[in-house]
Formats: sequence, structure tokens, C-alpha cells
Amino acid sequence: MAESFGVALLGAGRMGMEHARTLLGIVEARVLAVADPNLEAAEAARSLLRAERAYPEPLEALGHPGVEAVVIATPTETHARYIQAAAEAGKAIFCEKPVAKELGETRRVLEVVEHKGVPFQIGFQRRYDPAYLEAKRRIEAGEIGPVEQFIAVMRDPAPAPLDYLKTSGGIFVDQAIHDIDCARYLVGEVEAVHAWGAVRVDPRIGEIGDVDTTNLSLRFANGALGVIQNSRRAVYGYDVRTEVFGAKGKLVMDATPKTPLWRYGQGVQADHYHFFMDRFKEAYRLELTAFFQALREGRPPSPGPKDALEALRVALAATQSLKEGRVVRLEEVV
Amino acid sequence: MAESFGVALLGAGRMGMEHARTLLGIVEARVLAVADPNLEAAEAARSLLRAERAYPEPLEALGHPGVEAVVIATPTETHARYIQAAAEAGKAIFCEKPVAKELGETRRVLEVVEHKGVPFQIGFQRRYDPAYLEAKRRIEAGEIGPVEQFIAVMRDPAPAPLDYLKTSGGIFVDQAIHDIDCARYLVGEVEAVHAWGAVRVDPRIGEIGDVDTTNLSLRFANGALGVIQNSRRAVYGYDVRTEVFGAKGKLVMDATPKTPLWRYGQGVQADHYHFFMDRFKEAYRLELTAFFQALREGRPPSPGPKDALEALRVALAATQSLKEGRVVRLEEVV
Amino acid sequence: MAESFGVALLGAGRMGMEHARTLLGIVEARVLAVADPNLEAAEAARSLLRAERAYPEPLEALGHPGVEAVVIATPTETHARYIQAAAEAGKAIFCEKPVAKELGETRRVLEVVEHKGVPFQIGFQRRYDPAYLEAKRRIEAGEIGPVEQFIAVMRDPAPAPLDYLKTSGGIFVDQAIHDIDCARYLVGEVEAVHAWGAVRVDPRIGEIGDVDTTNLSLRFANGALGVIQNSRRAVYGYDVRTEVFGAKGKLVMDATPKTPLWRYGQGVQADHYHFFMDRFKEAYRLELTAFFQALREGRPPSPGPKDALEALRVALAATQSLKEGRVVRLEEVV
Amino acid sequence: MAESFGVALLGAGRMGMEHARTLLGIVEARVLAVADPNLEAAEAARSLLRAERAYPEPLEALGHPGVEAVVIATPTETHARYIQAAAEAGKAIFCEKPVAKELGETRRVLEVVEHKGVPFQIGFQRRYDPAYLEAKRRIEAGEIGPVEQFIAVMRDPAPAPLDYLKTSGGIFVDQAIHDIDCARYLVGEVEAVHAWGAVRVDPRIGEIGDVDTTNLSLRFANGALGVIQNSRRAVYGYDVRTEVFGAKGKLVMDATPKTPLWRYGQGVQADHYHFFMDRFKEAYRLELTAFFQALREGRPPSPGPKDALEALRVALAATQSLKEGRVVRLEEVV
Repeated sequence: MAESFGVALLGAGRMGMEHARTLLGIVEARVLAVADPNLEAAEAARSLLRAERAYPEPLEALGHPGVEAVVIATPTETHARYIQAAAEAGKAIFCEKPVAKELGETRRVLEVVEHKGVPFQIGFQRRYDPAYLEAKRRIEAGEIGPVEQFIAVMRDPAPAPLDYLKTSGGIFVDQAIHDIDCARYLVGEVEAVHAWGAVRVDPRIGEIGDVDTTNLSLRFANGALGVIQNSRRAVYGYDVRTEVFGAKGKLVMDATPKTPLWRYGQGVQADHYHFFMDRFKEAYRLELTAFFQALREGRPPSPGPKDALEALRVALAATQSLKEGRVVRLEEVV
Repeated sequence: MAESFGVALLGAGRMGMEHARTLLGIVEARVLAVADPNLEAAEAARSLLRAERAYPEPLEALGHPGVEAVVIATPTETHARYIQAAAEAGKAIFCEKPVAKELGETRRVLEVVEHKGVPFQIGFQRRYDPAYLEAKRRIEAGEIGPVEQFIAVMRDPAPAPLDYLKTSGGIFVDQAIHDIDCARYLVGEVEAVHAWGAVRVDPRIGEIGDVDTTNLSLRFANGALGVIQNSRRAVYGYDVRTEVFGAKGKLVMDATPKTPLWRYGQGVQADHYHFFMDRFKEAYRLELTAFFQALREGRPPSPGPKDALEALRVALAATQSLKEGRVVRLEEVV
Repeated sequence: MAESFGVALLGAGRMGMEHARTLLGIVEARVLAVADPNLEAAEAARSLLRAERAYPEPLEALGHPGVEAVVIATPTETHARYIQAAAEAGKAIFCEKPVAKELGETRRVLEVVEHKGVPFQIGFQRRYDPAYLEAKRRIEAGEIGPVEQFIAVMRDPAPAPLDYLKTSGGIFVDQAIHDIDCARYLVGEVEAVHAWGAVRVDPRIGEIGDVDTTNLSLRFANGALGVIQNSRRAVYGYDVRTEVFGAKGKLVMDATPKTPLWRYGQGVQADHYHFFMDRFKEAYRLELTAFFQALREGRPPSPGPKDALEALRVALAATQSLKEGRVVRLEEVV
Repeated sequence: MAESFGVALLGAGRMGMEHARTLLGIVEARVLAVADPNLEAAEAARSLLRAERAYPEPLEALGHPGVEAVVIATPTETHARYIQAAAEAGKAIFCEKPVAKELGETRRVLEVVEHKGVPFQIGFQRRYDPAYLEAKRRIEAGEIGPVEQFIAVMRDPAPAPLDYLKTSGGIFVDQAIHDIDCARYLVGEVEAVHAWGAVRVDPRIGEIGDVDTTNLSLRFANGALGVIQNSRRAVYGYDVRTEVFGAKGKLVMDATPKTPLWRYGQGVQADHYHFFMDRFKEAYRLELTAFFQALREGRPPSPGPKDALEALRVALAATQSLKEGRVVRLEEVV
């Protein structure tokens, strides 16, 4: 492939525009086409990116002349379709998580990707956050020895709209999956899970068959133990804390405060992140940069198809454990 | 009762001496007798405390003229015997945890205590740590709203000697019980548990039928969810962190560093607690002070018999869950 | 003026490229021309910015058709010339600090700016750092009451090359000036200074008549007292800490660590910023964004000519105080 | 000398009682006599300490049979008299700072101490705070290389009563002296000072000829530069922060928060020390312990007569600099 790549950006919503701003600064990426059913949004992105054309239909943008790679930031339920189309057209694919909410569809689409041999990266951006990147480096360098315990907390500032939650696949598939990927990234494969959930934030979440407060225990294949705690609401903001403990030490990733300003008045006080796109701004930039670097160097980008699939399997195991009130082994999720 | 109380200190080992130094500063306590089979230790404590007599036999010290209260800091397996003797003799009792490792014996001894109506306090010192005390106050004041999630981590710097571990009752009864009491104190009664354990620190711990690395999930009667993670070893020291999350905020208790000195060289660096008696020095002082205040004011001291019993029941439920690989409801532990 | 502005970027070195990346994302800025004597660098910036033309000579770029604003990031000694040329040509001006190292030349050039009435912003980027912005907002809102004390520390990781230092105007004009501007921004005008300096880092800095370690006391017109401490070297990195103390509280700006990752091993450890462009990355982005917003809204940008001049006067007063070993009042610096 | 020492405690006020509680736990100290004009207070201390007798008159307590050492915690203006009497009687002396407010009297009394050869320790307790102790150790071990800069901040929560301030000797002699001793301890001898002061907290402080807000620049004999900032009031509490910067790194002593409890609600929040006896509780305990250890081992205790004298000289130089508006060299203060 060449030094720079013709790109179609599918989706010009909040995340699409974030990727647009990042793409501006990636010299390997020349965005040629932008697509969004909201043509005004598509045009705004096109103008910012000085792209050749804005389309209302992603599949058309994908076929724009010169497009070699797609960045998919459309609504979740459309991911599978565009991944498949892009793979069949031989394009390199960067797609926001998830591929799909069901295991069957995910597997089917990723098989197309693998069969066509196109580069594929899933948007688990946290792997590219400088703190998590450095944690990974240190773990691999043996700084904390074999990992023995893992704790991840993620709480959103407020629940997404109920209409979204209805089709989200449930809290494990929708929210916990970032922590699950993080667990796989930093510790290894999950062997079994035990999940408990509760409806504490909003009873309507219970009425649609979901929970909003969870405690997910993990047993890893390498013998480590872990826990993921999620909540759909935290009044103080977006709460992401991860702790990895090993025989020689531990690493803690916790970005508090957001602003390095301490106020001394009633004691001492600082602020907190409220928005995941603020917290992981640099990660979003770095993941896309890494995708294009991988393309340029002819390496498979990462996290790839297996990461997309395996994180979903753990999330589905957790969902099953919650329903059945028992430990679920990953090998049951097929 | 009078303004000050005649006291017998049973046990002049490490913890006994810590209590001795505290007793020096408590005006309500006049230590009259000290007992330790190691008569030299007993005599050292007697001298420091300017007590009347040192005994090799705790039961004799208990009978020393004028003794109205006992502070029991003898080896674990002797607690039940001395509690029972003291209760039968009508003395007020402060005893290091646990009463006993078995539910039956614990219940039997505490029934004597209740029947005799003597004041009884169990040494869950963490309740008196200023951070935990203040957390309790804030939770009761409604500052974080109804509690929804709980996370407790406690890791010892290194495993106790194997001979001790053999008779310790297992990691949940011996170590996790402090976090369990903390969970009951800050959140409420536990309804069900799910435990996983692993042998990661020392294979000999596995050989004696115990584990050294655990992940204990808690479901509380009030609907909250929680987790306790323990390890028998942390190279960086004694690691105690507790997080209580509610509808209106969260509280985190984490005393790092030990010394408020930051070194800037390779990045920024500070130290860490290595010893539980350092971390909870003030708590040990305050719990004993509170015991004698309660005596003086004629109030039942706290934590009391029920706290001793219920924490043990949760620990035993965890032990059972670990063995049977399933969720255990507290009502099963009778 | 229109909604977007034709821009010439003068200088495509390290800071010029940083501004180039920022300009990419500012919709009000269309970079038409780039200039750098190093034509390869100029061409790289032009390509990234999709600008119309790269020039070796800044004055030519300034005359490129459609250019309405200039961003000056050329070597310090050329600032005055390009500011003057841009002002005379009626362009809006953003210029890296300083205008010039001498008071006379600074005053002369800024008089042209004022006379021509062109918008002018000096690159005291720290005013746009989120922590300092928020501190300013809180001070103006009265949160800490009247300011009474000020402390600023800035230490560079290592001295600049000796050839640079020779022409830098001395440590107060070159380095302290950022803290001086910060003092004026957060506290108010300086009335008198007392400076001490020492050569502790590199004797060659003494040989060229400068110092590398300073302690600058400030008395403000409003009665507050302050201190600025600078060093040309800090082994742990770029050290910037500012504390503003008032009748109702204090604010501390201190961005440590850089990466929100804590390693527990030998105590607890985190990293530190090593590079001012990392520490103030967001500030550099925000200052340029603010410049173009001001242009669009027809407001004078800030910090403006007076800020450039007054900070220099304080730095020159400090230089004089150091030489003469006495308190220097600002009114002496004319 | 013997293994334990007969002690007279002079003064049973707030600080005297603090020392009383410490003395209880020091096996080398047997308090025989307590003195306080407030006989009730004296009796309370006597009872706590199980001492032989309470006196209204310190000089009588000093003569109590068996007394070998005195702990002086009487009002400042009486220190000199009791030090002199104790020295003449051959007693070892621990005395709260200062010896006296005037240089002449201080010198005169300390000459008696030296002439009599009695052990003498002055109550600069901060030297025994674990953070400062460890900082000293690290500096001496060369961890931060030669010291180049020093910053000390100390702000009291609120001014002492005006009647006290009137006779306090001024802010440098009364308050800054702790930071001055700290500077001498961690950096070395002071060669020259430049002081600025302002009345910002309470105009009545100005009316009695003192200031309440200061900025004191220090030049050390070894070439380092430093600053001490003091204020008589900080709404958030007792503010003590010290920074020592050297060629190989820096050390920061800053004990915030007091309680290791973080509340997440409106951002993140913790408390602050409000009382110097809380912040330095351990230091008060350790300084007295060290005094008796020195007695037992026959070593001169530290900080000693020279430390008492030299800190006063720096404080007087600062006072003179403030009045005369110029740099004052220490050699001028004789």
C-alpha cells in the first residue's frame, strides 16, 4: 500500500466528528468521502476534512473512488452491515465497538473479515490511553510479576436514554465490555464468570429486563481473579479506575482530578471527569493513529477480530450468569 | 460503676503491649493485674503500667482484687475460654477478634456474655479509624445517599507463618473478617456470598487446604452489591482500600502514603504502610478509649456480640461458597 | 471580517508545527501561506495544512494574497521585525513571546501595533491552561477573597544550549517572564521586586553573565506579596507549580503526575512532565483558538500589547535588582 | 546517669499536658513533680502521671528530691528564668521555643547552660516529624544532591489573641522561626535575608507594629536560595509545606489531607489539618523521646543551644530587614 490512504468516514455524529478531528492530523489518512443520513452533519464533516464528497448513504461513501479504508462510527445496529460490505470490498476497517450484540452475527461478520484478509481494528480505545498503554508495557516487562488480582470500576455519570438501553444488549454487552476488554488486555483470557446485578438507579431499567448496578467476578485461565463493578450513574462524573495486582507490585490507573487545580477552602477539593470523551480524548486520537500506522507498516492493527469476539463472549457469559444465578464457564458460550 | 475501672490485661505480646501503652493514657482505666505465660513480658507490662501484680495465668489475673474489666489479647484459641470466665465473673470484656473460629463455640460463649449481661466489645479496630469513623458518619448523614456498591481490598505484606495459618480458620475467617465487619458497618447485613480463591503466593498454603488470593462477592439485604479482595502478600506493604458508592457520591478510604514526604527524582515517589499496627495505630487507641467511655457512661460498647457473630457467619458462608463452588445464602449458615 | 480568516504561519520549527496542528482544527483559520528559511520544513507544514504556498521568507508569506492574520513562531530576535511588518500591513497578529528583549524596541513595535489598531496577542500560553483559566475564574468570582500571597515555581528539565542563553536576555526575561505574566494575570500589577540569583547548575552560565537559580520577591500594587523561584535544571522534569493564597482560601496549580498511572512497588510512584509542550499542550491549542474567536467576534485578543510590555518591565526590574543588590520599584523601569 | 530519670514538668497547660501524655509512655522518664500556678491543672497532670507532688511554683518543683531533668512548657516570658535556674541546679533541660525574644537574654542564658554543661534541647519539634526526619536523612545521604532552593510555607488557621501578639516578638520571632530552624536543619546556615511584610489579615496587628503576611528571602552560606512565606490566617487550616530542591531531585513535605478519606460528590474532596498539635502530634512525641534517649546514652540532645540562638538571629535579621527595607546580613546581628 501507499504512504497515505483514501478514507471514507461513516457516521458524522458525536464520535464521527471526534474521529474527523483526529483524522485531520494523521498524515497517512486522506478522507475522501463522508457519509451520514443527516446530510448537514455529513457536509460539516466533509468541509472540516476538505473531503471530496458527502453522502447520505454509507454504502455509497464506501464505494467512492480511491477509498481504501473505512472508519465506522454509525449507530451500533448498523456496524455489522458496513463491516461486511467493507470487508467484501477489500477495505481496511476501523469500527467502533461492538461488531454486533449477538454472538452469531459477530462471528459471521468477522469470518468475512478474516476470509477477505482485510485489516480490522475494533474501537476499544482504552488500550490506547497513555496510562493503560504504559501499564501494559510494565506488565509485559514483568514489573509487577505474574498478575494475581484485577479490579475495574466504571460508572457512567448518568444512564443513556431508555430507548437506547432497550436495544443496547444489556449492561454487560454495552458497558462492561470495555472493562472486559481491559481485563483480557492486561491479565489474559477469562475462564469463568459470576455476575450479580441490581436495579438501583432507575426502576424503568428493570422493567426493560436490564440492571444498572453490577458486580462481575472473573476467573482467568492463568489463575488470576478479578472483579468488574459497573453502575449506570455516578453523580460526581465518569468514574474509571483499574487496578492490576501482581506478585511484585500493583498498578493503578485513575485519572482524578481532570483539572490539576486544587482549591483549599473547606478542606481541599478538585474536579472530576464527567464525560468519557474527555477522559479518553488522547486514547481516541492514539487508537486511530495506530490503525493507520499499522496499515502503513503492513501489520495487523490491534485490537482485532479476536478481541472483538472474545470480549463479547465474556459479556454474554456474564449476562447468562446474571439470569441463571450461577457461575458460567466461557466454554459454555458458543 | 465508678469513674475509673480496675483492669486486668490478659496477654503481653505485641498487641497486649500496644493496648498497654493505650491504657496508660486512659484515665478511666487503672490496670491492676497483667498476665502472660511469658512472665518476663508480663512483668515488663506491669512495670510500664505500674500495675499491682504480674501473673503467668490469665485466669488468676482475672480474679485479682478490684478487677472490673479485662482486656484480652491472648492467642486466638484461648479467647473463648477467657471471655467465658470473665463473663461468669461479671467483668466487662474487651477482646481481640475473633471470639472463636467455629460458629458453635462463638455462639455458646456469646450466650454466656448476654446471659450475664456484661459489657462486651470485639476488637474490630477499623471501625475506630478516623477515616472509617468519618465515613460512617457521612453515610448516616445521607451524604452519599443509599449505598449501592462496596469494594474492599486488604492485602498483607507477607503471609503469617505456616503454623499460624494451619489453625487460623482459613483466609476468610482470619483475614477477610475485618473487611466483612467493615461491610456490615458501612453498608448493612449480608444476604448472600460468592467466593473464589486461588493459591498464588505460596503452594504450601494450598497444601494445608487454604487459599491466599480471594475474590468475595457480597449481596446485601438492602440490595447493594460488593466485593472483598484479599491477598496474603503485597510487596509494597499493607494495602487497605475501601470504597463505598451511593446514589449521591462515593467515599474512599485509602491511607497512602504513610509519610507525607514526596520525592521527585525518577518521577514522583512516596512510601507506603507496611504494618497494620502502624496503619491503624490511632484506631487501636480509639477503640479502647471508646470501650472505657462506654463503661463509664453505662452504654453497651460497640462493636458487640452480634457484630462478632455475624461477621463470622459471613466468613463461614464465604468458606463454604469457596468449597462448594456456588452462591451461599447467609440463612444457610446456622 | 468574515467567518474565517486567511492565515500566514511564520516559522515551521517545533512551535510552528505545534501551531500548525492546532490550526488544522480551527474552522475560523484557513492557512494560505507558510514560511520558513528551511524550505523543507515550510513545505511539510504547507502539506499538512493544505496551504497554497510555502515561502522561505516570512515577509513574502505575509504578503500572500488573502492573508489577514499571521501566527509568528520564528526565532525570538525576528519577532519585532515581523510584528512591525504585519502591523503595518494591517494584519491581525499572534506572536510567540517575547516581542523583543529590550524595553525600547518592544515599546516601539507595540506602538505601531496600537497605532495601526490591529488585533495582537502575545503567546503567554499559560493563561489558557485549563487549570490557570479556572483559577482566574475563581479568583474573579471572589472564591479565595482578596489575594494576599503568590508562589510560582518553574524549573526547566535542563538548560537551553549556551548559544541560546547568550542572547536570551537573561533568566528573568527568558524564563521567569511566564511566571511574571502569571502573577500579573492572577494577582495584579507588580510594584517592586527584589531578586537574588546564583550559578548552581552550570558555571558557564555564570561566565556569560547570567544566573541559573533565582529567587524573585514581588510586591504587588494591591498589597499582596509573592515569590517566583526558577531554575534552569530539574532532573525530574519540567516543574511548574503556582499557588495563590487569599483571605478565603488558596488555589494550587500543579500537574503531577503526567500519566494517571500509579505503580506500587517500592512505595508508590508516578511519572512527571518532562517537556513544557506536553504540559501545556492544551494551553497552546486553546490560546490560538481564542485568538481566532476574538477575531471573529471583533474583540481584542488577550493577553495583548500591555501584557507583553508590563511582563517585560517586571523582568527587567528583576534583572536590575539582581545586578544592583537592592529593591527596584517598577516606576524606575522606563 | 541511670536508666531512668526523675523529671519535673513545668507547666500543665495545653502543651504541658501534651508532654505529660508523652512522658507516660517514655520508660526513661519518671515524672516526680509537676508545677503550674493553676494548681488544679498541676494536680490533674500529677494524677495522670502518678507523680509525687504538684507545686504552684516551678522553681520549687525543680528542687523536688530526685529531679534530674526538667521539661519546660510554661509561658514564653518565663523560659529564660527557668532554664537558668535549672542549669544552675545541674538539671538536664528540655524547653519549648524560644529561650527568649531578645538576643542578649538568649545568649546570656545559653551561656549558663554551656558553662554548667547540662544537656539542653529546644522544642523545634518539626525536626522530629517523620517527614522532615526522613527528608533530612535523604539529604544527608545525597539523594537530592547539593541543595539549591528552599521554599517553606506556614500559615496559621487564625491569629493568636492580640494580647499575645503584642508580646510575641513579632511574626518572624514568633512564627517564622520554625521555618527558619527548618531551613537551617535541611539546608544550612543563612547568610543574608530580605523581608517584606504586609498587614492583610487584621489592621490591629499593624497598629501594634507587627505584620501578618510575610515574604522572607534567604541566601544561604552554601549558595542556596530560599523563601519563607507566613500568614497569620488560613481559612482552610494549618498550612505547612516545605520544598527542598537540589541538583538531583526535590523533596516535598506536605501533609494533606489530615484524614485519608476522599469524598466524591462535587468533584473530589478531603479535609485539612486545622491545628498544629494535630499535624505535629507524632513530632511532639518523638522529640521528647529523643531527649530522654540522648540523656540515657550520654549524648547531647538536638536541636541544642546553638540552634536556639541561630534561628533567633535569622528571625531578628528578618525583623530588621523589614524595618529598614534592605538586605540584612547575618553578621550584622550581634
